[in-house]
Amino acid sequence: MLESYAAGSWFRAKAEGEPLLDATTGEVVARLSSDGLDLRAMVEHARHVGGPAIRALTFHQRALLLKELARHLSADKDFLYELSFRTGATRRDSTVDIDGGFGTMFSYASKGVRELPNDTVVLDGGLERLGREGTFLGQHLHTSRPGVAVQINAFNFPVWGMLEKLAPAFLAGLPSIVKPASQTAYLTEAVVRRIVESGILPEGSLQLLSGSPRGLLDELNEQDSVAFTGSAHTASILRNHPNVQHGGVRLGVEADSLNCSILGPDVTVDHPEFDLFVKGVVTEMTVKAGQKCTAIRRAIVPEPIADAVVDAIIARLAEITVGNPADESVRMGPLASLGQRQDVRRAIESLRNAADVVFGDRPADLIDADAERGAFLSPVLLRAWPGAAEPHDIEPFGPVSTVLTYRTASEAIELAARGKGSLVGSLVTNDPGVARRIVLGTAPWHGRILVLNRDDAAESTGHGSPLPMLVHGGPGRAGGGEELGGIRSVLHHMQRTAVQASPDMLTAITGRWTTGSKRFVDEVHPFRKSLEGLRIGDTVVSATRQVTLADIDHFAEFTGDTFYAHTDPEAAAANPLFGGIVAHGYLVVSLAAGLFVEPRPGPVLANFGVDHLRFLTPVKAGDVIAVKLTVKEITPRANADYGEVRWDAVVTNQDDAPVATYDVLTLVARTYS
Amino acid sequence: MLESYAAGSWFRAKAEGEPLLDATTGEVVARLSSDGLDLRAMVEHARHVGGPAIRALTFHQRALLLKELARHLSADKDFLYELSFRTGATRRDSTVDIDGGFGTMFSYASKGVRELPNDTVVLDGGLERLGREGTFLGQHLHTSRPGVAVQINAFNFPVWGMLEKLAPAFLAGLPSIVKPASQTAYLTEAVVRRIVESGILPEGSLQLLSGSPRGLLDELNEQDSVAFTGSAHTASILRNHPNVQHGGVRLGVEADSLNCSILGPDVTVDHPEFDLFVKGVVTEMTVKAGQKCTAIRRAIVPEPIADAVVDAIIARLAEITVGNPADESVRMGPLASLGQRQDVRRAIESLRNAADVVFGDRPADLIDADAERGAFLSPVLLRAWPGAAEPHDIEPFGPVSTVLTYRTASEAIELAARGKGSLVGSLVTNDPGVARRIVLGTAPWHGRILVLNRDDAAESTGHGSPLPMLVHGGPGRAGGGEELGGIRSVLHHMQRTAVQASPDMLTAITGRWTTGSKRFVDEVHPFRKSLEGLRIGDTVVSATRQVTLADIDHFAEFTGDTFYAHTDPEAAAANPLFGGIVAHGYLVVSLAAGLFVEPRPGPVLANFGVDHLRFLTPVKAGDVIAVKLTVKEITPRANADYGEVRWDAVVTNQDDAPVATYDVLTLVARTYS
Repeated sequence: MLESYAAGSWFRAKAEGEPLLDATTGEVVARLSSDGLDLRAMVEHARHVGGPAIRALTFHQRALLLKELARHLSADKDFLYELSFRTGATRRDSTVDIDGGFGTMFSYASKGVRELPNDTVVLDGGLERLGREGTFLGQHLHTSRPGVAVQINAFNFPVWGMLEKLAPAFLAGLPSIVKPASQTAYLTEAVVRRIVESGILPEGSLQLLSGSPRGLLDELNEQDSVAFTGSAHTASILRNHPNVQHGGVRLGVEADSLNCSILGPDVTVDHPEFDLFVKGVVTEMTVKAGQKCTAIRRAIVPEPIADAVVDAIIARLAEITVGNPADESVRMGPLASLGQRQDVRRAIESLRNAADVVFGDRPADLIDADAERGAFLSPVLLRAWPGAAEPHDIEPFGPVSTVLTYRTASEAIELAARGKGSLVGSLVTNDPGVARRIVLGTAPWHGRILVLNRDDAAESTGHGSPLPMLVHGGPGRAGGGEELGGIRSVLHHMQRTAVQASPDMLTAITGRWTTGSKRFVDEVHPFRKSLEGLRIGDTVVSATRQVTLADIDHFAEFTGDTFYAHTDPEAAAANPLFGGIVAHGYLVVSLAAGLFVEPRPGPVLANFGVDHLRFLTPVKAGDVIAVKLTVKEITPRANADYGEVRWDAVVTNQDDAPVATYDVLTLVARTYS
Repeated sequence: MLESYAAGSWFRAKAEGEPLLDATTGEVVARLSSDGLDLRAMVEHARHVGGPAIRALTFHQRALLLKELARHLSADKDFLYELSFRTGATRRDSTVDIDGGFGTMFSYASKGVRELPNDTVVLDGGLERLGREGTFLGQHLHTSRPGVAVQINAFNFPVWGMLEKLAPAFLAGLPSIVKPASQTAYLTEAVVRRIVESGILPEGSLQLLSGSPRGLLDELNEQDSVAFTGSAHTASILRNHPNVQHGGVRLGVEADSLNCSILGPDVTVDHPEFDLFVKGVVTEMTVKAGQKCTAIRRAIVPEPIADAVVDAIIARLAEITVGNPADESVRMGPLASLGQRQDVRRAIESLRNAADVVFGDRPADLIDADAERGAFLSPVLLRAWPGAAEPHDIEPFGPVSTVLTYRTASEAIELAARGKGSLVGSLVTNDPGVARRIVLGTAPWHGRILVLNRDDAAESTGHGSPLPMLVHGGPGRAGGGEELGGIRSVLHHMQRTAVQASPDMLTAITGRWTTGSKRFVDEVHPFRKSLEGLRIGDTVVSATRQVTLADIDHFAEFTGDTFYAHTDPEAAAANPLFGGIVAHGYLVVSLAAGLFVEPRPGPVLANFGVDHLRFLTPVKAGDVIAVKLTVKEITPRANADYGEVRWDAVVTNQDDAPVATYDVLTLVARTYS
């Protein structure tokens, strides 16, 4: 009997439960029931224990926990692979699920540290000046919702499917309640057990609901979200729940879709792209026995070479070995269950109203397996009749694909669009014009598009692989949700709010210095303060320096930057923006650095960059400049004895007009004595 | 009889239609019916005529049309003000609606040019390297949907409500079908008539549905969207439409909400913030007779000064004159209709189960108006009983507000949260700590939060005013949508797609140069090419220059930047990152400019900035640097004889290791001879 991890302890239902069968042998692997489980207590536990514990951590601290957890899970995964065979997955299939899941956590850990502040609030976009005087400003920011992330996963990726939702939710400050699909829930349970035993995540961050989620949505409110991956039918039930309709529960749906792969009109049989296309179709048909919501269901090919494409796909399909997924020589295992096979067979029958089966109308020879007990199915290739509608509407969730033909690029785009929204499409072409035309033409229907050619094939991760840094989810039939996409999915879990306030209030609220707010000048130069001693708003107000014509001449000669605006009085006078010799922008920022640095050895280790440098007023010979340098943001690094300090720099001239504005980025030691 | 503008011509229904009454006099202003209107033809017209015409324009071209239109509408608006009186709006109310609407168009016009490319595709986020070799990259981009934007507006802002939805949709490349609320549809019709007559927008960009939208959603598909502002009840009907449930139609909802204003615990009666709070509450109760979805319904005040607050609000309310909105001495006009008044009275009755009416239980004296024929109502202030639930749930859509009291900041946050999601909240405080605590505590329930104090009060636009650059919309009860927010709402109308491809393919698809793709070097230095002659990928491959210790010494002396890492061998050797003297970053970029510039007068007018400068490898004395400068993005300005060119700069050392990477921003003349 699978257990649920609920409100801090493992719960075992007393009911007999539903048997979960080995996909290959039909043996009972486990039984499943959530009978008697207190769902309200789970939600309350997440809300009052898990959520506050996560939100007490900064994004960086959360990211480091994810990294530690991913390392811990990666260290001992053989038992997961063994269990994964029972779902029908081959070793290769399992790698996508298990190592793919851990890789996603590593990716979020890394992005969390690199792309989020070491804080609990994320700023969104720049400052908006709302009045002339600069006393009233707007700043968008993202805050964590004090809610619960419910994650309802599909059966096909019991490990990855959980972790790709858990990682961004955790980073966003949300506790998760995971509800795996029944068929493969034992694999999810095994991972959750290992996570819980590790004690790495704060208690309440992750709970597991093994069994029926009936009643769970009744407990949710406007701070909660449900991320669902699965069938359009179930999605529709969720969309109709009163708490989604009226209660403000956010619902994200990632449903199956009729993804296409288009072979470009430029490709002929002797191009490398021809083989890349064929190989892609066969891979997508057979990995996970085609049970991937990203698999290629529609192969859209130019009519003149359609026969050649079909022959080539058939030739490769004929080499696919089917059988016991634990056998190393097997390329494709069974479907997840006999019921699943029945659904796929039914879908194939419907497709036959509009297409011919050109491969797979006979059962495959099985390696080390029993065709009656296991949910085996041969790969099936169909070729659509002209004008067929069914291939755009019916999704066989198995090793099945249909070839459709087109005559013009427009027609290829129209066929792709008939899928009414897909998670992913691919285009195999070596013609940049074709790529632009078809990618931009089909993009409105896709969450992701892969362009495959001889240049990227070696490094390509393939049509069917969602990547943690790229958006996963598509419009329309694909559900309209967006998962992954790096930090995007973290922000999707947070609330964006526009805050209007005075500069000082914005500085207090965001913890970052806002233009117009107080600057602190004291006798200690901020370059002499360690990371721990620096305050937001600490400022250097520099002395002044006159920029002479001799300086400009000399800088031109020394650097070789003899651009006419700095050297040729006549030409510079003719320049519509300057009307005379101006100092080099690089000279201005170099002199500004000379004005603001404190040269002695101290906690400032390096200037590692400059952002948003804009030259606003030309500096002419005789102008006198000065600079203000103010601590804008302090980012300690959790694993280093130094951190990043972002400084606001404003160079002004003798009229107090801004000459240049920019951010200076430095590394500063945590302590210095 | 109001007409619809449908499929390129004005349509007048033959039916008798529904009478629309003057809010003050009860006279019939117009009649409304869409009987016989061909909704399918409207959608087809938008899809096949309007959409393609808009999408043939770049973002800048669309922005300039919006600007032209806003100017045209602003030039002759007296007739709109006259008509607006009939809706019950005073002149001041009408300014918010009419000039506020035009201002929103101006804002979008300006942002469209400044923040969007002069192109039809928007890149989203940075390049993602998906493989070690750099042959396989990911780039998110936004494309226009080939769909239709249906906009269903509320009665309270017949002009602004239309334009704040139309402007971002048009910028995004979508044609709009506008369905105004019945009561005030004649004002919307007047504006649409003027827009159509101007001929400024391409035909099909804007259609008007005067009357019932029944059946309109049946015509929509996964490329279309519906933006709805109005009641939660109608929102629910829309959410249940099959094309929203299963057809992939995107629905954005902006529903009424129980917005709060919190008076900070730091404020006492003698603070300026006390008056600011009181004034804010009274303004929000009375502008538009409180018929604003952003009005303050809940005034949350510290218990110790609650009596003083209530007294002060009452004193101000007593001065509010009610009557004929066309009369200059009138501060508050009638509600939009007698039906509306009946709804508000009913809501007040429900509130009385949990609150006392402390002002407004007697009818107001009316100026130049008849209490029976016009939908007049006195402002009504209530004071909630301890623990009252109703004020958090019942929304009287009129000049009604309830005072609630709290003891601790936590309690104030909890009370705010009981609104279950609001468009806007405000906090009046002069304590930065209070601001941080309460803003971050209440942000998850708000789309916008105003922090008001003595510093920003003079420039503040007030609690109730959505601004085009800030998000308008809130979570939960407020509908969960997001409108405005500057370019954010343009992107909400577009589809985000992750494109995976080789560098060259990404360059072809995006029209912007991608790291790793081909560089073109020819005998003409790119600085000698005008904007029209430059190509994406044009590159300067520079000569080399050795950086000597003398150079570093000299630069330190010349600029005054004598930071120890450049001047003190011992201290530099102790630096954990450098281990010895290094060249100044500013020296490196200055020398790089010397290497890449072509000094003679030519089309390059100025270097106006630098973005994303990162120093990757320290440059030591004796190192030999070189630079590659490549045209990355070309942005012609529609209204100038020059445009912007963004260059990719990579400085490398003798080992070909990158020393510095950055973008150089220049202005380049369109032509040069």
